[in-house]
Amino acid sequence: MTQDVSRSDVRLDNWRTAPFSRWAFQNVSEIVPSAVIRSNRLFEEATYDLGPFSDLQVSGLDGLDQPLEAFLEASDTDAFVVMRQGRLIAEWYAGHCDPACPHIIFSVSKSLTALLAGILVGRGKLSLSDLVVQHVPEAEGSAYADATVQQLLDMEISLDFEENYLDPHGAFNRYRRATAWAPDNPADPAPDLKTFLCSLQKGKSGHGVAHAYRSPNTDMTGIVLERASGVRLPTLFSGLLWQPLGASSDAMITVDRAGTSRAAGGMSVTARDLARTGELVRRKGGGIVPAGFIADLWTGGSRDAWVKGDQTTLFPEGRYRNYWYSSGSGELAAIGIHGQWIWIDPATETVIVKLSSQPLPVDAPLDQAIVSMLRLVSVKA
Amino acid sequence: MTQDVSRSDVRLDNWRTAPFSRWAFQNVSEIVPSAVIRSNRLFEEATYDLGPFSDLQVSGLDGLDQPLEAFLEASDTDAFVVMRQGRLIAEWYAGHCDPACPHIIFSVSKSLTALLAGILVGRGKLSLSDLVVQHVPEAEGSAYADATVQQLLDMEISLDFEENYLDPHGAFNRYRRATAWAPDNPADPAPDLKTFLCSLQKGKSGHGVAHAYRSPNTDMTGIVLERASGVRLPTLFSGLLWQPLGASSDAMITVDRAGTSRAAGGMSVTARDLARTGELVRRKGGGIVPAGFIADLWTGGSRDAWVKGDQTTLFPEGRYRNYWYSSGSGELAAIGIHGQWIWIDPATETVIVKLSSQPLPVDAPLDQAIVSMLRLVSVKA
Repeated sequence: MTQDVSRSDVRLDNWRTAPFSRWAFQNVSEIVPSAVIRSNRLFEEATYDLGPFSDLQVSGLDGLDQPLEAFLEASDTDAFVVMRQGRLIAEWYAGHCDPACPHIIFSVSKSLTALLAGILVGRGKLSLSDLVVQHVPEAEGSAYADATVQQLLDMEISLDFEENYLDPHGAFNRYRRATAWAPDNPADPAPDLKTFLCSLQKGKSGHGVAHAYRSPNTDMTGIVLERASGVRLPTLFSGLLWQPLGASSDAMITVDRAGTSRAAGGMSVTARDLARTGELVRRKGGGIVPAGFIADLWTGGSRDAWVKGDQTTLFPEGRYRNYWYSSGSGELAAIGIHGQWIWIDPATETVIVKLSSQPLPVDAPLDQAIVSMLRLVSVKA
Repeated sequence: MTQDVSRSDVRLDNWRTAPFSRWAFQNVSEIVPSAVIRSNRLFEEATYDLGPFSDLQVSGLDGLDQPLEAFLEASDTDAFVVMRQGRLIAEWYAGHCDPACPHIIFSVSKSLTALLAGILVGRGKLSLSDLVVQHVPEAEGSAYADATVQQLLDMEISLDFEENYLDPHGAFNRYRRATAWAPDNPADPAPDLKTFLCSLQKGKSGHGVAHAYRSPNTDMTGIVLERASGVRLPTLFSGLLWQPLGASSDAMITVDRAGTSRAAGGMSVTARDLARTGELVRRKGGGIVPAGFIADLWTGGSRDAWVKGDQTTLFPEGRYRNYWYSSGSGELAAIGIHGQWIWIDPATETVIVKLSSQPLPVDAPLDQAIVSMLRLVSVKA
């Protein structure tokens, strides 16, 4: 931002006037919905080849074996990419999918936000034991007042808020409107995202007791990272992760009316770049994310909190640490609603990305079938 | 788009549901305002050096000589790039400007849209003598009903509409709201852009008589190009211009709620990529745009229509053809409000780009000073 203007001052009703125009003229897509005119040729470069998995039979939703491609189609897959030892060995896209177009990754955004947190910890800008209010004083009086950054990252915050993706009227819908993901209700206008987060109150238990998956925690993490670094989240991602990674395409992140990033779910990336990110994690952070932070993703989560939590079905033997799931069988996963996945199997040096447009946000039987498929692909030579 | 869904069906209230999500999950920035997470390192690669023009004295607004850099600062320049014989010889950015961030180019978008029209003409998808309604039947009954594509491109449409950038209430404001560039007025909601365009009526004179600068003409051109090619405008730009050009960054274009591109002014591009575009025009289209179409930009406009028109002040000896200005002294220019310029001087093989955030949309005395400066830079060895 320029000296005299903060991002939240720039609005649809003033962006073309000074002094707001200086910033707005280089950031129009944050104000007016915009289409991307791509410079890359990923569409031509993609291989569209399932390679060693062309004849792989996997178990379908009905329990019967079917070819991998049929499974991908049946599970509304848009993009599917497999890397082994860092080499792209299979790449599949649905007919309607452009490999060059970044695809929304929903809660996989959380896992990438955590990597950014790890980088800032490594640079001494942030400590996971910090209280949230040390960085975001506006959180005083909210549920976050006595929470630590580590509790935010582990989803061990006690929050009086229900994660209900299909809620049309209540608090979750208000949250959606605050993030600019749904039309606002003029009769009951939503506040901006930061104000919404700072209005949330504590639940009945204390923090640090049980795994409680609540997306607002990650949006708050995004604000913590901005305050700790003094840099807006999209710029942080670019400088600390996307450029060092050698990403081949720009990524995007949705913003609310005040410019607060939707760290909990608003990132869009290409399947190839997401696979590169998974490979970075597999290679112990690749010198970009501290190796200790990465090792901790597998071993650091509290089994006790997981067992007491609200997501045990998929990985009964699992843990959750810094917005990544460890399966209990050695694999690590980042998962988003509507079927977004990074799957890392260190034993076979495999990284798999699946991006989808499943009709339901959450589909537990399908998740089980997908995990089985990911395991078959991982072990297939 | 996918088979069963057209772009205008996808809205903020349905984008996360099937069947709309298939498209929306790869195009979130068209629905929810989004920030870009850049993959390129243009920020580090830019030279920040005025090169041979470091000591150039130019005439300021007060008529007194001043160093070029002082003039750039005084005229709210964000980015300034000079190419000679296709080589980047000077590059300057304001302290608040990131060279990697595409900058809105306002009506220079028109000039780029015309290049796209030229390419489609070359491919036989479109003829400039076509009637607009041959491609856009919805224009029947509007001012555009009996207009040709050439008249659209030359701004020789008789339209009952005033181009008043500072209008807070009237037809121009309604137009702004239709483009999604301003908050809508719930008491008098604007239609979408295409519906707005098709509601415009003819002025008192006929088409093809006088140069009449009206931005809606170019938005209509964008729709004509989409219909003629069967491809949405951002994809057309990408495939026919941005990729062949070797653009180094993605460009963007704003869209209305139905996904209609703001061809008249909504493109954002980096200064370097815009200079590349100017260089393409200088090199007779570079094999990408038909050479005949490019030659016509200098010589094809009607002197008579120009003299009868509403923009003679800046180039009294000029012409206007296909959204480009020819100065009458050999140079060609693309110009946008708030200070956006491509300047091409074939005699000295020079291309200059100036991107700005001037407070006023139109500033005639400043335009005169800028043209003088551009001429001095062009002739300086």
